[in-house]
Amino acid sequence: MKPSNQLTAFLKSENEWLPSLSIDCVIFGFHNGELKVLLLKYHNVDALALPGGFVRQEESIDEAAGRILLERTGMADIYLEQFHIFGQKDRQNHLFNKTIIEAQGILLPAGHWFIRRYVSVGYYALVEFSKVVPAPDYLSDSIDWYDVQALPPLLLDHRQIIQKALDTLRTLLAHNPAGFSRRAAPLLPETFTMADLQQLYETILGQKLLRTNFQRKMLSLEVLERVDKKWTGGAHKAPYLYRFTPHP
Amino acid sequence: MKPSNQLTAFLKSENEWLPSLSIDCVIFGFHNGELKVLLLKYHNVDALALPGGFVRQEESIDEAAGRILLERTGMADIYLEQFHIFGQKDRQNHLFNKTIIEAQGILLPAGHWFIRRYVSVGYYALVEFSKVVPAPDYLSDSIDWYDVQALPPLLLDHRQIIQKALDTLRTLLAHNPAGFSRRAAPLLPETFTMADLQQLYETILGQKLLRTNFQRKMLSLEVLERVDKKWTGGAHKAPYLYRFTPHP
Repeated sequence: MKPSNQLTAFLKSENEWLPSLSIDCVIFGFHNGELKVLLLKYHNVDALALPGGFVRQEESIDEAAGRILLERTGMADIYLEQFHIFGQKDRQNHLFNKTIIEAQGILLPAGHWFIRRYVSVGYYALVEFSKVVPAPDYLSDSIDWYDVQALPPLLLDHRQIIQKALDTLRTLLAHNPAGFSRRAAPLLPETFTMADLQQLYETILGQKLLRTNFQRKMLSLEVLERVDKKWTGGAHKAPYLYRFTPHP
Repeated sequence: MKPSNQLTAFLKSENEWLPSLSIDCVIFGFHNGELKVLLLKYHNVDALALPGGFVRQEESIDEAAGRILLERTGMADIYLEQFHIFGQKDRQNHLFNKTIIEAQGILLPAGHWFIRRYVSVGYYALVEFSKVVPAPDYLSDSIDWYDVQALPPLLLDHRQIIQKALDTLRTLLAHNPAGFSRRAAPLLPETFTMADLQQLYETILGQKLLRTNFQRKMLSLEVLERVDKKWTGGAHKAPYLYRFTPHP
């Protein structure tokens, strides 16, 4: 297999990047009652991976996260938030990087910059599943949504990175539900029923909640406004539709 | 001034460290009703700085944070928690590093590893003011506690790093008071009055709280146990003493 010109140029670009530092993006969507995460499949590699990349010498890490997401997935203007830095000494991403490059027909010499140790900054985002059309980049065969409750084999420590992002969401939801509800807006359509919202909460928490308690709690947070009844045919049984109030 | 052998050796040690990455430690203590933070004064430099350093090739970032705190302050076995990574492109720590080295009589050539761009991982800890005896290292004249409400001029973005650590504490206290109370144990003596605890909360939040509300809220969290009355001379007015229940 002949390596692409793009890849060959990239492997010579050492001086453009901050050494030692990488970024991985955990992009959450919600569809059919499942919390999903966006994963890439590299050419000729069996396991999947989070969209990730490096930091340019002249950009901030926040700027790098946005650019990486755009380049690797085609998604622009997504609000990304850093949640943790993964700095174990045995992350072994040099092996990961070696694997994906060798799968493209290039043998990297020992000590090549691309196969040194990297500490990775994790960013996460909550996006509207229906509005996002991810596109794979030149390194990847495909990019797709996967249920976080049934993840396929992942490269490196990407399973732990997703778990930590999920823990961050759960902590926010448990201890700051108003803050969570506002941030979670992109996971739901513009108007939704209380049952839709409860399903989202249950999916993220991985446990069932009592319907009456949930409704009372949500209404007390003053982050929802009731807009209309959902038309279901039988008018007296139609559930109310809600939407999130605008951010203050 | 003749540079120390230790400094000369350090400046030649580029290959021992992960490039681009530094660590800064925000160590909080509480004394005389003031929330304090530990700061170093480098030789011949006017502004103060957080204890910081680099990550060895063969250690995790958590291990690095503990080692750096020990080397720079003499403090061992402190529970440090990462809270944010500071990756603005204009942190200009190359200027900062140039300043502290030149103040020791060494001129660094352009491009020297010590004056390249660094992204810094912030760690914080809450420690017992009375049990900690910080000691300055070979780069510093002194190490001391400073009131976070009246910080002296600081090098680099260290004021923002302290502010972000304080915001992290405030968020924890506001949204997860039980979690905060357990973590805050080192800030108070083993037994304390409700007024002592309230003063700590007020100091961190930077605002006054209602005494009766505060007491009711704290007791409802089930993180405190009442141990005895404080002896004050007038027995019927003596306040109760409390301590934190052991971590579950």
